[in-house]
Amino acid sequence: MSEYIEHDKAGVSVGLVEKKSYTFAEPPDEMILECGKKLGPITIAYETFGELNDDKNNTVLICHALSGDSHVAGYYRPHDPKPGWWDIMIGPGKGIDTNKYFIVCSNILGSCMGSTGPSTYNPKTKEPYGRNFPIVTIGDMVRAQKALLDYLGIKKVLSVIGGSIGGMQVLEWSVRYPEMVVSAVPLATTTRHSALAIAFNEVARQAIMADPNWKNGNYYSGSKPDVGLAVARMIGHITYLSDESMRLKFGRRLQEKTNFSHNFEADFQVESYLRYQGAKFVDRFDANSFLYITKAADYFDLEKLHGSGSAVKAFSKTRSRFLVVSFTSDWLYPTYQSKSMVKAMKKNGLDVSFCEIAAEWGHDAFLLPNERLTALIKSFLESTYTESQKQKNEIRSSDNRLMD
Amino acid sequence: MSEYIEHDKAGVSVGLVEKKSYTFAEPPDEMILECGKKLGPITIAYETFGELNDDKNNTVLICHALSGDSHVAGYYRPHDPKPGWWDIMIGPGKGIDTNKYFIVCSNILGSCMGSTGPSTYNPKTKEPYGRNFPIVTIGDMVRAQKALLDYLGIKKVLSVIGGSIGGMQVLEWSVRYPEMVVSAVPLATTTRHSALAIAFNEVARQAIMADPNWKNGNYYSGSKPDVGLAVARMIGHITYLSDESMRLKFGRRLQEKTNFSHNFEADFQVESYLRYQGAKFVDRFDANSFLYITKAADYFDLEKLHGSGSAVKAFSKTRSRFLVVSFTSDWLYPTYQSKSMVKAMKKNGLDVSFCEIAAEWGHDAFLLPNERLTALIKSFLESTYTESQKQKNEIRSSDNRLMD
Repeated sequence: MSEYIEHDKAGVSVGLVEKKSYTFAEPPDEMILECGKKLGPITIAYETFGELNDDKNNTVLICHALSGDSHVAGYYRPHDPKPGWWDIMIGPGKGIDTNKYFIVCSNILGSCMGSTGPSTYNPKTKEPYGRNFPIVTIGDMVRAQKALLDYLGIKKVLSVIGGSIGGMQVLEWSVRYPEMVVSAVPLATTTRHSALAIAFNEVARQAIMADPNWKNGNYYSGSKPDVGLAVARMIGHITYLSDESMRLKFGRRLQEKTNFSHNFEADFQVESYLRYQGAKFVDRFDANSFLYITKAADYFDLEKLHGSGSAVKAFSKTRSRFLVVSFTSDWLYPTYQSKSMVKAMKKNGLDVSFCEIAAEWGHDAFLLPNERLTALIKSFLESTYTESQKQKNEIRSSDNRLMD
Repeated sequence: MSEYIEHDKAGVSVGLVEKKSYTFAEPPDEMILECGKKLGPITIAYETFGELNDDKNNTVLICHALSGDSHVAGYYRPHDPKPGWWDIMIGPGKGIDTNKYFIVCSNILGSCMGSTGPSTYNPKTKEPYGRNFPIVTIGDMVRAQKALLDYLGIKKVLSVIGGSIGGMQVLEWSVRYPEMVVSAVPLATTTRHSALAIAFNEVARQAIMADPNWKNGNYYSGSKPDVGLAVARMIGHITYLSDESMRLKFGRRLQEKTNFSHNFEADFQVESYLRYQGAKFVDRFDANSFLYITKAADYFDLEKLHGSGSAVKAFSKTRSRFLVVSFTSDWLYPTYQSKSMVKAMKKNGLDVSFCEIAAEWGHDAFLLPNERLTALIKSFLESTYTESQKQKNEIRSSDNRLMD
């Protein structure tokens, strides 16, 4: 354990990690996307944590949300100011224990954090894809993750875990590759966006496309649509919080002043917070990726894609155990949506645990330290692993008997 | 009754009306605003409906919300496609009966619908005010309305009624001019914006100010910041609806297509609706007015302005009867905020009726046809009027006795 340990407030860190990448779908073997277009080569950035055991049955796949990346835990360099985005959950002895499990997290297709997306150089045109990047779906993202696991020699995944858009990938995994997914943990997510969720995404996209620097997506050689992207991010941040969390966090407190400015400066702390979040985001994220990923989330419709409109039919395709978690103050993907998927799972006789966690932090709650969530995931993984070992041993002993 | 009657689906219309205006605060007698700056001359556009009775005790003042105007009922021309914005409530025999009451509605200070605002020609600079327009408050808007009523010779108002930002004006009226306001009906409103409400307004303002055509508010001689204003309006529209109303109204239905476009066109009806609302709004509203009015709403804080931070103390200044109404699905000004003001009113021994109306249409519910709301307002006005007549007669008979 070295210097980075001092940054680690959440407990012991998994330590130094490295971003790797895997490239596939090289022409002429491009991947045929759900929209019908071809894409290739495709590079997927990924990180792994812990060790794959000899039975290769301890893999946990983490799926990230809109603006996340493969850096789910640990540090790239000893003095990194911050660890990966879910370091509170992933590490030695943590909820997802790196001493027991082999954890894989990859950056989603369409993103800008190392995987192929609209900001990637297009070998055919010799410039970034921009708007020439084809529309990708949650299904396409999952198929790219599957290609990565194939490459890593993983045939079965103990659990696929993720929240928000990551949770959509979890659901997609469970019905698309039932033979591979032993268990699935969709957190703070939905089988399909409500009109409200689509509305927020659409307004955010409009804010980006309204920025004259967006130039129909071809801005990589000039100024970026930063102001549009900042507004889009601000809209997002409102939806990640809740009335209650904003009241607790900001209330009507003023930002470094005792009286109103009587102009259009940021008077209230909440205004200052949103402006800061918007400004910070443009340094690390690509506006086109924001457009493509939100569109993928809006298009996602498990019922339609896998069940001809029926959630019960869609979940008839999976054999996974499930742990479904929602949060009381999440108004982007409210509990009723989780309950509805749980009902459809149960109608298929699936092994489902459901928990609504009381949390005031809105949709963001799934990313924040929460003992309840950590304990739930930890015990769910342990019981899944024990069960899976037991079944393996039973098969082995039955194989041995057959061979006797 | 003429041709316009055929448009009038809500019942009998008050008929043809005319927009009038009143100008005051001519230099050197400018109005001193709450921010300390002077403004004048000030023009207030207004409309009246029904007749003022001889006792001058039948006036109902209607206060409009963010994008409203003085045209609360009736038609300007026989073939107007639409009546005023609250024609379902105001007219002969309606909830606010033009056969009984004299109704006044004026456009708020800072707006762009006939009253003085940032788009108004500034006689000093000989160009529109733009950003030189001073910050106005809900208190300033109410003081301008008071000036109008003085001009109309009205010393007492039977009721002040309004929803949303109009409701803030209602509350301000009741504590600022207690001797004038017999009763007050704040609908779907709050004594002060929550952090969530401020956040939505701030993002909408940022969208406008991010538009390069905004040019720090001085755009009146060139292109207007239409794309920014459209995004701002789209954000507003989301907050006016609710998860439930959007599900009922749009769900995931596609707009005139059977399959996804696989590009960034409006695929879903809700996207199409928002784009339409945004595009339509820029034809009738001024972006700077949007900035100034939302800022006034964010600054409004009845507790702070009139009660040193205490709602109980603030309401100790009023003598009005109250009918407070909230709507179950309004998440911009949720019921708990109305309940909190009702509690503070009751602690002052005020005569308060409170009703939470079950309605799925979100914040917009107060503007939509609702039998319950109509009946509540109608009977509240009737009982207030009867009580007020009784008191007048008692005073008269006591005066007569004194003179005997």
